[in-house]
Amino acid sequence: MTTTIDGARIARRIRQQVAAEVAAAALSGTVPGLATILVGDDPASAVYVAAKRRAITEAGMRDFHRHLPHHATHDDVAAVIDALAADPEVSGILLQLPLPVQLDAATLIDRIPVTKDVDGLTTTSLGLLARGEQGLRPCTPSGIIALLDAEGIALKGAHVAVVGWGELVGRPLTHLLLSRGATVSVAHEHTTDLAAVTRPADIVVVATGVPGLIGPEHVRHGATVIDVGIHRTSAGLRGDARTGELIDVAGRITPVPGGVGPMTIAILLANTLYAAERGTRPYTVPV
Amino acid sequence: MTTTIDGARIARRIRQQVAAEVAAAALSGTVPGLATILVGDDPASAVYVAAKRRAITEAGMRDFHRHLPHHATHDDVAAVIDALAADPEVSGILLQLPLPVQLDAATLIDRIPVTKDVDGLTTTSLGLLARGEQGLRPCTPSGIIALLDAEGIALKGAHVAVVGWGELVGRPLTHLLLSRGATVSVAHEHTTDLAAVTRPADIVVVATGVPGLIGPEHVRHGATVIDVGIHRTSAGLRGDARTGELIDVAGRITPVPGGVGPMTIAILLANTLYAAERGTRPYTVPV
Repeated sequence: MTTTIDGARIARRIRQQVAAEVAAAALSGTVPGLATILVGDDPASAVYVAAKRRAITEAGMRDFHRHLPHHATHDDVAAVIDALAADPEVSGILLQLPLPVQLDAATLIDRIPVTKDVDGLTTTSLGLLARGEQGLRPCTPSGIIALLDAEGIALKGAHVAVVGWGELVGRPLTHLLLSRGATVSVAHEHTTDLAAVTRPADIVVVATGVPGLIGPEHVRHGATVIDVGIHRTSAGLRGDARTGELIDVAGRITPVPGGVGPMTIAILLANTLYAAERGTRPYTVPV
Repeated sequence: MTTTIDGARIARRIRQQVAAEVAAAALSGTVPGLATILVGDDPASAVYVAAKRRAITEAGMRDFHRHLPHHATHDDVAAVIDALAADPEVSGILLQLPLPVQLDAATLIDRIPVTKDVDGLTTTSLGLLARGEQGLRPCTPSGIIALLDAEGIALKGAHVAVVGWGELVGRPLTHLLLSRGATVSVAHEHTTDLAAVTRPADIVVVATGVPGLIGPEHVRHGATVIDVGIHRTSAGLRGDARTGELIDVAGRITPVPGGVGPMTIAILLANTLYAAERGTRPYTVPV
């Protein structure tokens, strides 16, 4: 019997809680605002940004959106970031990735002030994470932690396999899991025996961008599988796990869509609220 | 048959190479300089700083030392750091840890400019490491990588167990190993079955501060054991591994003393040279 983890439901609860806190803050005249910056016309990016903007408005926050043409220069984007950085009504700034090839994402992300870095991807935010100090954390890995917490899955002493050492998920997630007392094994494209790494794990998180990489040969009976992948196929959206084959193998599994995806946006809202209230409370995700 | 890895010999080779590069740079009028800051009179810290200063001088670099009393305030230490930061003759600044209890190490370390951060412990340096960007890396984990390279032990595809998730060794080492293509498992005090994590590994790195934690029950036949621990006992210096019991189990093992310890100072010199030449070449350790 495999339980499907309802990420959409858990995300909805977080979003409702954020909305309630935003409404309370609004009574005292403070309305958090999130600025999304989209450069160019990549259709997937446009869909993601639209979903984020909708969530911002639904949470009662102010939506500051900037759309630049695909031929925008470094100076064009930098000027937009600097203006948003200086605007006291903007609590958080999100630069949607990927950027057109003429732009260097790392340099532009680092123009975002750490206090407004709701994506948690500036050098300083990643350094604070590495040091275990307070700070804004990347949305997807924080969403995974919130999902596991909401499901009552203990992390302390658990053995977690993280498959994929990417900058957005694998690396920050490894820090978050270890800070919670999990034992973590990290596998990636150079790993010679993937199953040997994943089979002992209580929890397998897969974030590789390889469709259907993880199957029953990789997962011990009863383990939890968190699937971060999302791929458009002729049969609909699919993840990095072969979900169908994992029925009655995995104890719990996140679906694609409706698993990790909705959590990312919920944490983005929680991060924006935290950025707006910065200095007044420690970083927590409302679960 | 267990081979003892001669860290002292490898470190000497790196130091000689650094000295040769310093001598070459001196011909064009540039002499790298390293500033060590010691606060208080902790005997172990005094020994470490003295060893670093000796190595600096032997490498032909300029030795800038600052000694503050144990009751120094935050502002006292900050003023010393700021003066060294502004001094063009100072290539690198090292704040010896631990600090007296009235001082916050993280805040003071972050006053060191990233360009002079030869210990690689500022928030920015750790963030650059997390992002996989150029930068100064912490000395001990870099020394471990250099040691493994010098011994011809391949990292790509190797399975490495890192025991200990500390800020100085375990965390940055995990990033360095993964950036070299190793599969990495991280264990620590909350790990429920340590042997299950370490026994599959080709390389076991132990940096826990627990004397004699690792024995033959943790190491598969022929694996490499890197012992970062150093403990003063009535029987002399000991590490985190029970070296005697690992003879004929481990394929290679670092001794304590004479293993990882000398590498840390060698990398400090290499980092200082790199800081002095910053911008002119990518970060490499001369092995």
